[in-house]
Amino acid sequence: MTDTTPAVGIDIGGTRLRATVVQPDGTIGDVLEVDTPVGLGTDPHTASTALLDTIARAVTRLDPDAALPVGIGFAGVITAAGVAVYGPNVSTRNMPVRAAVGDTTGNDDITVVNDGNAATWGEFVHGAGRAVDDMLMITLGTGVGGGIVAASTLLEGAHGFGGEVGHLTLQPDGWQCPCGNRGCLEAYSAGRSLVRHAADLLVGGRPSTLAGRELTPADVSAAAAEGDEVAIEAIRTAGRWLGAGIASLVNVLDSAVVVVGGGVMAHVGQWLLPAAADVVPGLLLGHPDRPTPSVVAAELGDRAGMVGAASLARTRAGQPS
Amino acid sequence: MTDTTPAVGIDIGGTRLRATVVQPDGTIGDVLEVDTPVGLGTDPHTASTALLDTIARAVTRLDPDAALPVGIGFAGVITAAGVAVYGPNVSTRNMPVRAAVGDTTGNDDITVVNDGNAATWGEFVHGAGRAVDDMLMITLGTGVGGGIVAASTLLEGAHGFGGEVGHLTLQPDGWQCPCGNRGCLEAYSAGRSLVRHAADLLVGGRPSTLAGRELTPADVSAAAAEGDEVAIEAIRTAGRWLGAGIASLVNVLDSAVVVVGGGVMAHVGQWLLPAAADVVPGLLLGHPDRPTPSVVAAELGDRAGMVGAASLARTRAGQPS
Repeated sequence: MTDTTPAVGIDIGGTRLRATVVQPDGTIGDVLEVDTPVGLGTDPHTASTALLDTIARAVTRLDPDAALPVGIGFAGVITAAGVAVYGPNVSTRNMPVRAAVGDTTGNDDITVVNDGNAATWGEFVHGAGRAVDDMLMITLGTGVGGGIVAASTLLEGAHGFGGEVGHLTLQPDGWQCPCGNRGCLEAYSAGRSLVRHAADLLVGGRPSTLAGRELTPADVSAAAAEGDEVAIEAIRTAGRWLGAGIASLVNVLDSAVVVVGGGVMAHVGQWLLPAAADVVPGLLLGHPDRPTPSVVAAELGDRAGMVGAASLARTRAGQPS
Repeated sequence: MTDTTPAVGIDIGGTRLRATVVQPDGTIGDVLEVDTPVGLGTDPHTASTALLDTIARAVTRLDPDAALPVGIGFAGVITAAGVAVYGPNVSTRNMPVRAAVGDTTGNDDITVVNDGNAATWGEFVHGAGRAVDDMLMITLGTGVGGGIVAASTLLEGAHGFGGEVGHLTLQPDGWQCPCGNRGCLEAYSAGRSLVRHAADLLVGGRPSTLAGRELTPADVSAAAAEGDEVAIEAIRTAGRWLGAGIASLVNVLDSAVVVVGGGVMAHVGQWLLPAAADVVPGLLLGHPDRPTPSVVAAELGDRAGMVGAASLARTRAGQPS
């Protein structure tokens, strides 16, 4: 495999599959986007077969000759053998993604990786982390995901659970997290947390366009854009919790750059990111002697997963599995 | 460098330097132990010179021909160039350990590493982590240190601060930690925490031989050995905090084995370790589907740092610096 080989990059989320051909410099071709057939209530075996068929069709459309390495980012826990043990958005378990897609397409060079880790690798190779060797990524969306690169190596862990930074505990006995624990970074900084932070602030009776109604994260974001101070403070509060989580992780990982991405950033990053970055230095062990990590916005947006999956596929192509 | 080459391993703590020759199988020769000349109030330049001379003399005594790789574990932050940026127990900054010891001894193969990372590597290669690729180590002493091995690679971070697991925040606005932050793992699980946990339990007026006197960690440990229930519960409380920290770290790192060592373990491990291990599985993301890490006692004791430093020196010998 030479440095001039393109690769197929596929990002499979809970509702959509997106795929493209990625050049070695990170530029991408047209994006193929299809719905992922993973509806609730579907029989697990049928759902698994339908999803694997959808992936295989996308691979074949982009690479009819089965000549390119293929990288697949999948929202779930992935073993070294390319099996999706489980995923929060699919009803199936132990889906042999690499083997099944390889059989159907006749392509042997298939790499499967957790979607958060794929996006992390994309930002590391071609995005906001490209200048460093040690990077932490945190994606803020409905949930909080991310990944870790240490010494230029993706940290995948012993069983494929590595890099799940959203479930660092920030507050024991704190807010309930969808994962079942309390007080996770996800509970305090994901999209849904904006509503909780706003509700906390509204208890004091502060004037706000948010008062007296059921709220969604989009309501908080829209109100902030209109200058509502409670909305902006709610976002900043989520940002300060994010900063506390970043500092705790950097105290352990010593990352040079912290990349923050995800849909929440796109809407409220202008208030959230500075609030996070502000609290990090004061919480670092050895401050003020130690270098402070840069806390920056992701650069690749929703291309990061495809770009990272393709890059990993190129790197790992031909390696024993 | 072949697999039959021994190496010099040196462990430099706040009060003592210990050095030996380590064989490739991890067995060690006689241990040379000398006081480290790092008294308080010493002029930084003089202290630095005296310490570097002490290290160089130890190297020369163990390896008069300057023929072996030398690994030096140092309680401080170490750059890739082998400079000790700072250490909590020494009065000097930016001490060029590798260059100075190399010049004095005429040995080019000198590797300098943080002492917690050296001990972690020792347990990984020859101790409790030798069967896995992903290991977390936590050492409980006056402070809490440790290290991380991910995909068989020591995680040293961008600036040499990597693996400082003792300063993960467990409780925002919690107990003061010597590092300046509040609520760190160190504040809740280091030796000193036993006294605080005991004091908390004694507030309720429970009968205990610990009541009504100034306590040290050794008092708590001694009372536990006599069967004092408050002392044992204080130790178990520290263990449960440790378990919470382990779970939070494993949620991010997905370590297969968690090795717990340090002087506190030697004295109270029989109560502390099971309490820690008990709380981990319930706090893991994806439980009960995910494999639970083993939480085990360190095996190499105070040899871990020397063994790990020597092993790293053998691994890195001859590499460009």
